Amino acid sequence: MSAAPDPMSLAVLAEPVGVPPVPGGVPVAMDVASRIDRLRGCLPDAGVDILVVTTLANVRYLTGFTGSAGIVVVGGDTALVTTDGRYRSQVAEQLQAAGLADAVDVVVGGAQEQRDAVAGRAGGSGRLVGLEADGVTWAAQRRWAEALAPADLVPTAAVVEGLRQVKDAGELDLMARAAALADAALADILPLVAPGRSEAEIALALDSAMRRLGAEDRAFETIVASGPNAAKPHARPSDRRIEPGDPVVIDFGATVGGYRSDMTRTFACGGQPAAEMAAVFDLVARSQAAGVAAVRPGVAACEVDAVCRDVIAAAGLADAFEHGTGHGVGLDIHEAPSVSSGSTAILEPGVVVTVEPGVYLAGRGGVRIEDTVVVTADGCRPLTRFPKEPVLPRT
Amino acid sequence: MSAAPDPMSLAVLAEPVGVPPVPGGVPVAMDVASRIDRLRGCLPDAGVDILVVTTLANVRYLTGFTGSAGIVVVGGDTALVTTDGRYRSQVAEQLQAAGLADAVDVVVGGAQEQRDAVAGRAGGSGRLVGLEADGVTWAAQRRWAEALAPADLVPTAAVVEGLRQVKDAGELDLMARAAALADAALADILPLVAPGRSEAEIALALDSAMRRLGAEDRAFETIVASGPNAAKPHARPSDRRIEPGDPVVIDFGATVGGYRSDMTRTFACGGQPAAEMAAVFDLVARSQAAGVAAVRPGVAACEVDAVCRDVIAAAGLADAFEHGTGHGVGLDIHEAPSVSSGSTAILEPGVVVTVEPGVYLAGRGGVRIEDTVVVTADGCRPLTRFPKEPVLPRT
Repeated sequence: MSAAPDPMSLAVLAEPVGVPPVPGGVPVAMDVASRIDRLRGCLPDAGVDILVVTTLANVRYLTGFTGSAGIVVVGGDTALVTTDGRYRSQVAEQLQAAGLADAVDVVVGGAQEQRDAVAGRAGGSGRLVGLEADGVTWAAQRRWAEALAPADLVPTAAVVEGLRQVKDAGELDLMARAAALADAALADILPLVAPGRSEAEIALALDSAMRRLGAEDRAFETIVASGPNAAKPHARPSDRRIEPGDPVVIDFGATVGGYRSDMTRTFACGGQPAAEMAAVFDLVARSQAAGVAAVRPGVAACEVDAVCRDVIAAAGLADAFEHGTGHGVGLDIHEAPSVSSGSTAILEPGVVVTVEPGVYLAGRGGVRIEDTVVVTADGCRPLTRFPKEPVLPRT
Repeated sequence: MSAAPDPMSLAVLAEPVGVPPVPGGVPVAMDVASRIDRLRGCLPDAGVDILVVTTLANVRYLTGFTGSAGIVVVGGDTALVTTDGRYRSQVAEQLQAAGLADAVDVVVGGAQEQRDAVAGRAGGSGRLVGLEADGVTWAAQRRWAEALAPADLVPTAAVVEGLRQVKDAGELDLMARAAALADAALADILPLVAPGRSEAEIALALDSAMRRLGAEDRAFETIVASGPNAAKPHARPSDRRIEPGDPVVIDFGATVGGYRSDMTRTFACGGQPAAEMAAVFDLVARSQAAGVAAVRPGVAACEVDAVCRDVIAAAGLADAFEHGTGHGVGLDIHEAPSVSSGSTAILEPGVVVTVEPGVYLAGRGGVRIEDTVVVTADGCRPLTRFPKEPVLPRT
């Protein structure tokens, strides 16, 4: 039904619904060690002398440290990581693995000790100290203002996130693995997507399959929404059992090496969808294919949104597509750039975004189709490759 | 080994390692509808005329709405909920279920539309508008300051969280179910906690068992840390396979109706622990039992921390217990009150906290034992009840 080329097909899966191959081999190495220097180069444009990084995904990106508490300070010749006692040995091991053991100072201690260490590097009159305005609470900002006085605190936006938008080869390798593994997990549990099964059963099977196949975790809380629940874009899996003819929206992803995939498929469960939903399936498939076809370097992200939205509006269903078309994916499931009407981003090679239009009819059902795609030199390449046909093979 | 009374015992489990009963019957009803009025009563003490609630767990607590985006405004005769289009039908259903359909205004729309609706109620010169300083980013606070000008924004702390500390009967029922279900899941997968199994396998089995038994989800990312990894309090499950004699720390919980449990057990895998770890097992068990015994109304949370810490310090291992003794649990896995040396909280009936001392010996291993307990009229009652003996039954 989708116009996009599709190397896998449900016809193939219909024979034995098996597990397509997940990429093997040695992971492509990531160059973590160079990122702090690249961040240094961004500080003048951000209007700061030194940046206090408190967003955990940014801490991980810059240093490879994956603890649940940590701060990075970068500026001038300063490079500091702080964390608390739970992560004393882990931070040392991960900095070593990233090749940063000698390049970065480490302070392990309580909150006050960490703030003092940051103040020792970033404080001082006349310094412009950047604080990530989207990655720090108002309460924390007030504590930083006191700790770093009389330095001027400057709210920064999307400095490290800007670097993170363009993925390197090592990151793309992990994301391709995550996406392939999610494809394989869905193929594996496809026989469960059938009348009589509950949404929660399917979600559990999918989450378990991803981990059994090698994912460190799901990428976010898996959505399985059937029948009228499919009209809720962010429904949580319930005990509702699938009935024949139901649309079943499955929105899920895997995490590999910290990097996430994101894919939605909608199935017509128990045979051909009824007439109204069949038309919606076709409409969303055309919208999604048009959106993917629009993704290429130099295109504005808002233009991709408009392409998807126009297809749905032409069918008179503009109001039934209430969310944005997509978002960046990487260490976070939602990251820059946004693919929405208000987005100011311009796509460039290495950027990874989702394209996920949907149509939702309250009380009746809904359809969403989503791929994660990477922008290439002249277009884009889908990382998620599961077939988009709504009708499941008989198993 | 633990001095605490223990209604279940590993000897019982050793016969068939079965699934102990999870509480059945009708859940105790929660009185969500009264919470907004109780919050109104707290506003004068918080020094504000009206409070803008942006912390999602607080939004859920006040309204029963569980979406991933939402704002509540309470003050004077205002009660407003806003969210975006993804949750149009869900918010209406959940407010209805909470008995709030007539008591609360609802606005569904984009970010600007929601801000305008909040400004319509909370803006205006001379109003003192509270904004949750721990639940709003600095960037969001700056947007609110502009949207609500010329009203004065007041940073508030722990206003709704203060209400949430004391659980009602309906909340305690859900937490007891979550804890019993986690007990049952651990009993179910206990045969897997054995030499040759990987940490990731055990974590997956435990997460799956909790959901199969009826949990809507795990309470947080399950920790299974074996051998030297057990020296890291917040290790992530790895592919490391358990070796005979390893300590295995398992820290996990279930979520039922949004409420969480939290329990840690440490096992000596493959027989009696080696001499050094046997002494550590004994020490941590004594520390934890002393901490639980100290929990009662009127006691300062910092005193519970001191009781646990003193036992470990007396053995000369003060530096090996680097984290706080515990934390509140409820809709969040970490919530008020903190059970740590710096805590100013006084325990009272209905407060639920963890007691979880640990000793960590870098490169060699570690032991942590944790229960979730509810403060009663004259002491406390553990919600988590799995036996604490470190030596596993042969299966």
